[in-house]
Amino acid sequence: MDNVANYLEKNNEKLLKELFDFLRIPSISSEKEHKEDVKSAANWIIRNFQEIVFDKVQLIETEGHPLVYAEWNGAGKDAKTVLVYGHYDVQPVDPIELWESSPFEPFIKDGKIVARGSADDKGQLFTHLKAAEFYLKSEGKLPVNLKFIIEGEEEASESHIDEFIEQNPELLKSDVVVISDTEWFYYGMPSICYGLRGISYFELEVTGPNRDLHSGSFGGAVDNPIQVLAWIINQMKDKYGRIAIPGFYDDVLELTEMERENFNKLPFDLTEYKADLGVKEVNGEMGFSTLERIWARPTFDVNGIKGGYIGAGQKTVLPSKASAKFSFRLVPNQKSEDIAKKVSKFIQMVAPPTVKINLKVMSGANPVLVDPNGPAIKSCITSLEKAFGKEVVFMREGGSIPVVETFTKVLHAPVVLMGLGLPNDNIHSPNESFSVDNFFGGIKASAYFLKEFSNNIK
Amino acid sequence: MDNVANYLEKNNEKLLKELFDFLRIPSISSEKEHKEDVKSAANWIIRNFQEIVFDKVQLIETEGHPLVYAEWNGAGKDAKTVLVYGHYDVQPVDPIELWESSPFEPFIKDGKIVARGSADDKGQLFTHLKAAEFYLKSEGKLPVNLKFIIEGEEEASESHIDEFIEQNPELLKSDVVVISDTEWFYYGMPSICYGLRGISYFELEVTGPNRDLHSGSFGGAVDNPIQVLAWIINQMKDKYGRIAIPGFYDDVLELTEMERENFNKLPFDLTEYKADLGVKEVNGEMGFSTLERIWARPTFDVNGIKGGYIGAGQKTVLPSKASAKFSFRLVPNQKSEDIAKKVSKFIQMVAPPTVKINLKVMSGANPVLVDPNGPAIKSCITSLEKAFGKEVVFMREGGSIPVVETFTKVLHAPVVLMGLGLPNDNIHSPNESFSVDNFFGGIKASAYFLKEFSNNIK
Repeated sequence: MDNVANYLEKNNEKLLKELFDFLRIPSISSEKEHKEDVKSAANWIIRNFQEIVFDKVQLIETEGHPLVYAEWNGAGKDAKTVLVYGHYDVQPVDPIELWESSPFEPFIKDGKIVARGSADDKGQLFTHLKAAEFYLKSEGKLPVNLKFIIEGEEEASESHIDEFIEQNPELLKSDVVVISDTEWFYYGMPSICYGLRGISYFELEVTGPNRDLHSGSFGGAVDNPIQVLAWIINQMKDKYGRIAIPGFYDDVLELTEMERENFNKLPFDLTEYKADLGVKEVNGEMGFSTLERIWARPTFDVNGIKGGYIGAGQKTVLPSKASAKFSFRLVPNQKSEDIAKKVSKFIQMVAPPTVKINLKVMSGANPVLVDPNGPAIKSCITSLEKAFGKEVVFMREGGSIPVVETFTKVLHAPVVLMGLGLPNDNIHSPNESFSVDNFFGGIKASAYFLKEFSNNIK
Repeated sequence: MDNVANYLEKNNEKLLKELFDFLRIPSISSEKEHKEDVKSAANWIIRNFQEIVFDKVQLIETEGHPLVYAEWNGAGKDAKTVLVYGHYDVQPVDPIELWESSPFEPFIKDGKIVARGSADDKGQLFTHLKAAEFYLKSEGKLPVNLKFIIEGEEEASESHIDEFIEQNPELLKSDVVVISDTEWFYYGMPSICYGLRGISYFELEVTGPNRDLHSGSFGGAVDNPIQVLAWIINQMKDKYGRIAIPGFYDDVLELTEMERENFNKLPFDLTEYKADLGVKEVNGEMGFSTLERIWARPTFDVNGIKGGYIGAGQKTVLPSKASAKFSFRLVPNQKSEDIAKKVSKFIQMVAPPTVKINLKVMSGANPVLVDPNGPAIKSCITSLEKAFGKEVVFMREGGSIPVVETFTKVLHAPVVLMGLGLPNDNIHSPNESFSVDNFFGGIKASAYFLKEFSNNIK
């Protein structure tokens, strides 16, 4: 048994007790009444860094919830520097009645730590603190210089971390950024996420006549803005499920044969997937599998639509306005700014002269692709395989983590998505949990990673 | 000068005073707090019939507001019987701040009686009471047997008159039904409306996945119910503006050349129409003019749509459900029941297997076409031309008056739409008005009609 396994065995109770203490703080960042709790969680983390004995530990106030910064510089100028990102805030608990127990009273059931924030992200983040603790307590030093930047606004509607990163490239300078805030494909299948989709989000308002009209007196003679909107929505995709906007696919990086083979090897069960969602058939871009569609192909979704009379009963109105919110998920190497321009141009082109349109670009985030052959990922693979005794699989995710792009852009360092969550962890839902195996295995993996990465050629 | 003109001149002030009294009662049927006012208006009418000295005058209670029934039978069994329909209830007054004066304090301005209900329908209805009064006061008898059925729920969401007609065919038995509740094409252009569109109203709910999904994690792999709904909406019409449902046009009566010529002769100004609506271009079924599209062609309008997130800001949701309310306007000889079947079949056919659909038929009314060559209409033309000294024009309306079909179906009598309103009467809007000329001319026309119709071959 190696040193870290030894350390974990000896400190098993203490480590769980600490995590439980951290989980007891209801740091719900989107709810005003928990503002002080969010700050308490930040201070709890700071005290934990102080116990581990980091060189510099700081609470950084923002216009919202504070950031926590910590660093240990003892490895010297020639050593590698690792930056860990995570978040100490959590999602709200509603619907509270579906929780088996109080969301902030952690307990272990069937090998899982059940509590709000256990997987997302307190438990995952905490593995890296405890890996650092192992080195500093057992060996007196870390194999690398280690920095942490931890936010309390990842689950809030507004976040200040991107601004902070942009303003502090020197402080955060590092050779790799490690984030544990993603999921494995399956239990017992350590996974590295090497790609995230980006997003380009819009709101479109279509105005027809200058007032609501009686559909009896005007129907058939004046274009109906709901129908024009439905028509525009339909122009977005062709009948093969491809987006019909000129130039939309120009920068799309096609999947390699190797990637497609790897995706295919994953134990994805389409029958189970459909049954879980309650749909008879899935649908998407022709020529691609479901995993390919979600992970590596761009797409278009209407996120909301409204127009006319939506109350009970009926009203014979031909409305003046209709509007929709919609978004495109982007894949490497599409750029959200470029897509926003192409979408705007397309909508201008297809909108008929019977209506006025007002298109707002709401937000954008670029997709992320980490080179799965880079030295940082190599170290990650080795560490996960050593920690869990299983072969690592490569996967992507369909969602976006905008901070990843900010790190890449500002620090010019590779990002490693060394997630430890499981698909059935119920993040953002009642009875959130985090596998005890993945918690202790994650500490090991983090410890191995620091060592492995320290040996890489700089 | 004939007798009726003479009567009107002598009684000018009295007639206006009576109408003003009637208009002062705020009989808003859709607002609960006006329930007693609605009843007061019914009783006011009853007293007026009693003053005119009708044989039978009745307040008929319903589950909603009461009906008023009145009859005069002195013409004998061999004489014709005329039934007049009208309504004594009025629209709400909002937005009250746009009224020049109190909606229930009538006054005359620029030759118009300004008050809520002046045109719709108290003023129009009142012309028939006063024509009857002229005969009974001046000549002691009417040339026909005359019945009135007047409702107080025409502007309410629920109405009981159709039920009453269906249950009382003997009471209401007549040779013609006269309704003055439509508009002229223009001031100084007495018009007979000989066609109304029908309607078939639906609500469609589309359900995709069994819960709202994250559009990042599922977008592109699972059909989005908003987009499926938009797609179904798009299937309803072809690119020439025709409804694409198989068999939809089977029973459509094409316009005759004569009708098209007549429509074409009307002083319709498309430039003015577009300017008034604030649209650059109109749109509708190819091959038909705007008036033809509104009056004589069926159409499809989405009256309301909702789905997903419609609040402020953005949410990356792939919703479980989306729904729309929509209606088809029908023209002779389409039947709403038949159309409902064809629409249901079509939607079942086009809905993809990725979603579940739930289609509700909300309501239906058949279109109406009155034979413009029938003897009742001939009497109406003669009377209007004599009363107003202008040639009568024929027009249709795009809306539906469901009670017309009920009369036709139950009484097997022709319906004459002898409207007296003008397009700028602001019905359902602030500063509703009714032309003084059309009020007095309408009394004359009604009196002439009773005489003319009495001479028709039975």
